[in-house]
Amino acid sequence: ELKNFLDDFHYADIAEILDELDLEEAMYVIKLLDSETTADILMELDEDNREKVLRNLSTKEIADEIGELDTDDAADIIAELPEERRQEVISAIEDEEHKAEIKELLKYDEDSAGGLMAKELVKVYDTWTVAGCLRRIRGQAKEVTRVHSVYVVDKQEKLVGRLSLKDLVVAKNEQKIADIYISSVDWVNVHDDVEDVARVMQKYDLEAIPVVDNDQKLLGRITIDDIVDVMKEEAERDYQLAAGISQDVEADDSIWKLTRARLPWLLIGMFGGIGAASIISGFSDAMDKYPVLLMFIPLIQATAGNVGVQSSAIVVQGLANDTIDGKILSRLLKEFALGLVNGLAIAAIVLLISHFGFNTSYFESLTICVALISVIIMAALIGTFIPIFLDKRGIDAAVATGPFITTSNDVFGIFIYFLIAKLILGF
Amino acid sequence: ELKNFLDDFHYADIAEILDELDLEEAMYVIKLLDSETTADILMELDEDNREKVLRNLSTKEIADEIGELDTDDAADIIAELPEERRQEVISAIEDEEHKAEIKELLKYDEDSAGGLMAKELVKVYDTWTVAGCLRRIRGQAKEVTRVHSVYVVDKQEKLVGRLSLKDLVVAKNEQKIADIYISSVDWVNVHDDVEDVARVMQKYDLEAIPVVDNDQKLLGRITIDDIVDVMKEEAERDYQLAAGISQDVEADDSIWKLTRARLPWLLIGMFGGIGAASIISGFSDAMDKYPVLLMFIPLIQATAGNVGVQSSAIVVQGLANDTIDGKILSRLLKEFALGLVNGLAIAAIVLLISHFGFNTSYFESLTICVALISVIIMAALIGTFIPIFLDKRGIDAAVATGPFITTSNDVFGIFIYFLIAKLILGF
Ligand SMILES: [Mg+2]
Ligand SMILES: [Mg+2]
Ligand SMILES: [Mg+2]
Ligand SMILES: [Mg+2]
Ligand SMILES: [Mg+2]
Ligand SMILES: [Mg+2]
Ligand SMILES: [Mg+2]
Ligand SMILES: [Mg+2]
Ligand SMILES: [Mg+2]
Ligand SMILES: [Mg+2]
Ligand SMILES: [Mg+2]
Ligand SMILES: [Mg+2]
Ligand SMILES: [Mg+2]
Repeated sequence: ELKNFLDDFHYADIAEILDELDLEEAMYVIKLLDSETTADILMELDEDNREKVLRNLSTKEIADEIGELDTDDAADIIAELPEERRQEVISAIEDEEHKAEIKELLKYDEDSAGGLMAKELVKVYDTWTVAGCLRRIRGQAKEVTRVHSVYVVDKQEKLVGRLSLKDLVVAKNEQKIADIYISSVDWVNVHDDVEDVARVMQKYDLEAIPVVDNDQKLLGRITIDDIVDVMKEEAERDYQLAAGISQDVEADDSIWKLTRARLPWLLIGMFGGIGAASIISGFSDAMDKYPVLLMFIPLIQATAGNVGVQSSAIVVQGLANDTIDGKILSRLLKEFALGLVNGLAIAAIVLLISHFGFNTSYFESLTICVALISVIIMAALIGTFIPIFLDKRGIDAAVATGPFITTSNDVFGIFIYFLIAKLILGF
Repeated sequence: ELKNFLDDFHYADIAEILDELDLEEAMYVIKLLDSETTADILMELDEDNREKVLRNLSTKEIADEIGELDTDDAADIIAELPEERRQEVISAIEDEEHKAEIKELLKYDEDSAGGLMAKELVKVYDTWTVAGCLRRIRGQAKEVTRVHSVYVVDKQEKLVGRLSLKDLVVAKNEQKIADIYISSVDWVNVHDDVEDVARVMQKYDLEAIPVVDNDQKLLGRITIDDIVDVMKEEAERDYQLAAGISQDVEADDSIWKLTRARLPWLLIGMFGGIGAASIISGFSDAMDKYPVLLMFIPLIQATAGNVGVQSSAIVVQGLANDTIDGKILSRLLKEFALGLVNGLAIAAIVLLISHFGFNTSYFESLTICVALISVIIMAALIGTFIPIFLDKRGIDAAVATGPFITTSNDVFGIFIYFLIAKLILGF
């Protein structure tokens, strides 16, 4: 009766329930359901849980599940298997065409259009008639969950256009495909980055996009549901990177997993703090003569951190959206101006507060204010420069905000503070 | 010839070009193109630029553009107009049905399903036959850009199921809709939050979802392209909030606009820094007797900030994904344990470095380490508690990470540091 009960649920809901159960219970449910449903459930499970479930399935069972999945999902599952099982599972797939397609997909990089596309699509030749086309589409469409566009290719398999299902429904039976297809068709290259694919699909409001090779041959198709997943994962990963979390974790993960994700940045921050301590101890004369300066260390540090995170976040976002061009110098000049404006505003307030609230001398107040302005400008420049620099070297700029910027600014900021103090107060 | 040249471009590309031009040039291009194209271009322009363009169009011109747009986009444009123009523009819309639909959409909250849905959809009654259905769909479909599902309603206009276009193509002409429709249909309520709609569509891989009122009456439809835009905007906004940027800005915005977005958090951070300065000055005995303690202020502060941002980011994400349940106590206990583990690891290293590198006495080392562990635990608890607390009160938890957490932790962290110093060193 549990089986009957579960049959009423969507596979995504069953996966959500299984994610909460322990492995033994989950395996019991999986063995209970038929491989068509479990294949879909498998795809929706949390990656960690999927790995555990797969470890508990035989090669034959995994091959059966994979037989039920679209090629894109099938290839993803196989790619997650340990090296030594991969070949076994592939050999155990019964449908030879499915097997060949999956093997092709496994060649492409995970982050490329090829890594996201499926081989399932509906394709017609430009020489066909509408009637013949409809007949054959009925055949192909049974294997394709959602048809979206019908892609039109020439006899060299090169993509030449598309037909919407609506056009076909409205067209007359005797018309030729060559006469009714739309030749303006968006496509992506199989080696394009998935984030670029997402950008194109969002910009043109596409629900599916064909993927071609360098010769314009139609290789596969990417659907928007998979792009939505990519966008969501990307956004969550960038958010976590900006928060100094180095692995994909969730609130419910184990303390051990969370520690592994969090400790690396805490250690780097710690070394930054030790570095700051060394700088302060290097200026120990100042500590003796102008103890009031030490009270403003938290202010300098917090401001440097905030400015750095703000400017880096804007640059990281601009790079991700391709709205930042290469003109690094003009961007740095702009950040300089911005830092100056913000710095003057904050320094003016701090001047009043420090003078009246903390009885600082004129020179001490001057030191604090000049240091604040310098530190704000420096933090804005570092926050702008580092992401652009990383991006130019092909490194994902998203790592370069949050604690990364904060830590570098902490050390630089405190050094600049004491340097300016030395220049003005001359201890 | 400029017109002919532009006709070859997609409206999204033209919009991208117009965003780079100044207003006069942009207006020239807009007046050149027909209102069908410019309506689409208008929707794709940057919000600021759209506002400027709209200010330069007459009521009649805007009403013409709106006549070309789907109801969802039309309502959005009208909602962006200044109050006094709205009524004028609505009155100038010629098509009475379109006008009534737009007026209905304007009633719904921007962040609700109603604010995102369009009235354009293809709907059939369960009493129709496939042949009659196909005939009428051909009519309705001309007004709907993409059909996706055909929604099936009963005679009270209540949503009872759906038909895929594929099912219709495959079905026999004489069959009744009541016999072939799929009764399991996902839907959202018109008052549901758009983020919930996005979650449902992502979970079930939907490309469109019908929107119903409290009586299950079919009101409209939300398509995935608009959800993709919402997801993207949400992700960018949350990222900026976490970075202490209080308005939606881009790298190319003016210095004035960027300052308005950035200065508020810098000011709050500044007051945090002043607060920290007051705390330190309140412990001025310590400054005289144990100057070495002051050197470790940056370490304490940086660690508190990093831990707080890490824990709050995970909670904010968990809340956004609905994976965090209400068990606040068990979550705080977990963060306590996590803080203890991380704190012990970092304190052990700092103990060695401070003792050998900075010649701290045993009691000074003890102070630094105990303070570090306490501050890490406190930062983890604050970072967890505040987002959950805000969420319970109906405030978007996304505001509660980044500089917000950093600033509160700076002040608390330094206070705890000196308090523990006082307890251990007893000055
Ligand atoms: Mg893949
Ligand atoms: Mg779009
Ligand atoms: Mg759009
Ligand atoms: Mg797929
Ligand atoms: Mg990225
Ligand atoms: Mg996980
Ligand atoms: Mg900080
Ligand atoms: Mg803007
Ligand atoms: Mg709206
Ligand atoms: Mg999905
Ligand atoms: Mg999916
Ligand atoms: Mg729309
Ligand atoms: Mg949100």
